[in-house]
This record gives sequence, structure tokens and C-alpha cells, in this order.
Amino acid sequence: MKKMALIATCLMVLVLTAGGVYAQFAKVDDAITYRKSVMVIIVQHFKQMGAMVQGKAPYDQQAFAANAAVVKVMATLPWEAFLVPGSDKGDTTLSSAVFSKTEAFKKTASAFEASTAKLEALSQNADLKAIRAQFGAVAKSCKECHKPFRK
Amino acid sequence: MKKMALIATCLMVLVLTAGGVYAQFAKVDDAITYRKSVMVIIVQHFKQMGAMVQGKAPYDQQAFAANAAVVKVMATLPWEAFLVPGSDKGDTTLSSAVFSKTEAFKKTASAFEASTAKLEALSQNADLKAIRAQFGAVAKSCKECHKPFRK
Repeated sequence: MKKMALIATCLMVLVLTAGGVYAQFAKVDDAITYRKSVMVIIVQHFKQMGAMVQGKAPYDQQAFAANAAVVKVMATLPWEAFLVPGSDKGDTTLSSAVFSKTEAFKKTASAFEASTAKLEALSQNADLKAIRAQFGAVAKSCKECHKPFRK
Repeated sequence: MKKMALIATCLMVLVLTAGGVYAQFAKVDDAITYRKSVMVIIVQHFKQMGAMVQGKAPYDQQAFAANAAVVKVMATLPWEAFLVPGSDKGDTTLSSAVFSKTEAFKKTASAFEASTAKLEALSQNADLKAIRAQFGAVAKSCKECHKPFRK
């Protein structure tokens, strides 16, 4: 009986935790709007860094670091919103694969978080060559999630 | 002549600075989408803090502080996007008053930044009473900008 009680407790914790995650969004559409908003902000700041590493804009260390800091924070936010059941339908490019390959999705999400955090760290004082290389690594980690999980 | 040269230089610096600010957005619509995205994220995290201070959700210090940290960062981002010429037209609720009362707009923007930063600081270790009071102050500072500058 103790074992069953333990299993029941664990199940309840799991349900409550998952509920807490999804309960963050009152409606499925709120999750879609939220994660799109995060992506808009990431793209905007990523483009500004891109212009600098590609030489289209002068390299401004402080501006680059400010952009990298925003992207680092944003990169931590949207993942739960992608896992809201039913949010692969409607005005979204999310592939249903997130629900069948959730572990793989979480892995690419974590890789993106790690790559943006590293870019932010480098932006503090690394040379432009190292920053440019890491910027490329971030771009690659965008694609590694988009390819399997974006329609 | 020296005086005129100085004035000319200052004007050029001003134009270039303003150009840099607005050049962040390739199109006026990009500025509108960007600032809306920032607001979506602020609202989402503000609501989660609201549920806790209003007793609709259990107070979870770590979750509250995480939300406050996101709002603090977001509060620094959207102001330039509101000042893009022409961005009071189209799919927006921005009032044209931002262009005639820009100093007042910047003042309310700074007040919002300050109030969210204070909430984040308090969320680290203050008691719930102080946090609740500061949450109210942030809500007030939202309204103080929305009232004159939102249609």
C-alpha cells in the first residue's frame, strides 16, 4: 500500500506541475501569441548583432552585448508555450512533432539556451573573431530546432 | 563661425543618433510588432505575479522573482519603438501624443522602468506586504503611460 500511495503522490505531483506549466496560459491562443512575441524579440536583437558581425554595421561592443543579453533572457522563455496541447493548430507554424518528439524538442531548446548564453558571455570581452564564431553557432542552433519542429 | 560650426556638428550628431535609434527597425510595422511583442510578454508575466499577490495562486517566491526579472528586462526595451515616426498609424493603439509630448512620454517610460526594477529588487527577499504594495505601484505606472499615450 505504501508503494501505491507513493505512486499516487508522484502522479499527483506530475499532474500539478504540468498543470502549473500550462495554467500559465488561460487559452491556447495566448500560448501561441506569447511564443511568437518571444521570437519577434529574439529575431530583432539577433539581426542587430548579425549586422555587426557581418560588417554591415560598425561593431559596437556595448550595443552587441546589450543585444546578446536580451536574446539570452528571451531564449529561456518560450519552451513551455510550445508544449501546450492543441497549440500546433491555428495561426502557428509549430509542427505536431513537438508532441511525439518532446525529448528531442527539449534538447534543441536547451542547446539554443546554452549557445545564446555563451554568446552573451563572449560579448563581454572576447575578440570579434570568437564572437563571430559563436554567433554562427547560435544561428545553427536556431535551425536545428526549426528544421524538425517548424512547419 | 566657430559657434555655427559647433551648432552644425551638434545637429549632425542628433540626426545620426536619432537615425541610429530608428534604423533598428527596417519598417515602421516592424517597430509596431516589436513593441506589441514586448507588451505581450510584460502582460503575461505581470498577470502571473498578479495572481500571486491577489491570493488567486499560492505565493511562490522563486516564481514571482523570475517573473519580476523578465518584466524588469522587458521594461527597458520598447520605448524607441514607440517613437518611430509614422508608427501611430496602422494596427496600433499608440496615440499621436507621443510625438507632441515626447518628454512626458519618456518620463512615464522611465517611471515604469524604475518601478519594475524596484519590484524585482523587492522580490528577492522582501515580505509579501511590501511586494504587494510595489506591485500596485507598477500597475499604477502602467496606467500613467497608457492614459495619455494609448488610444
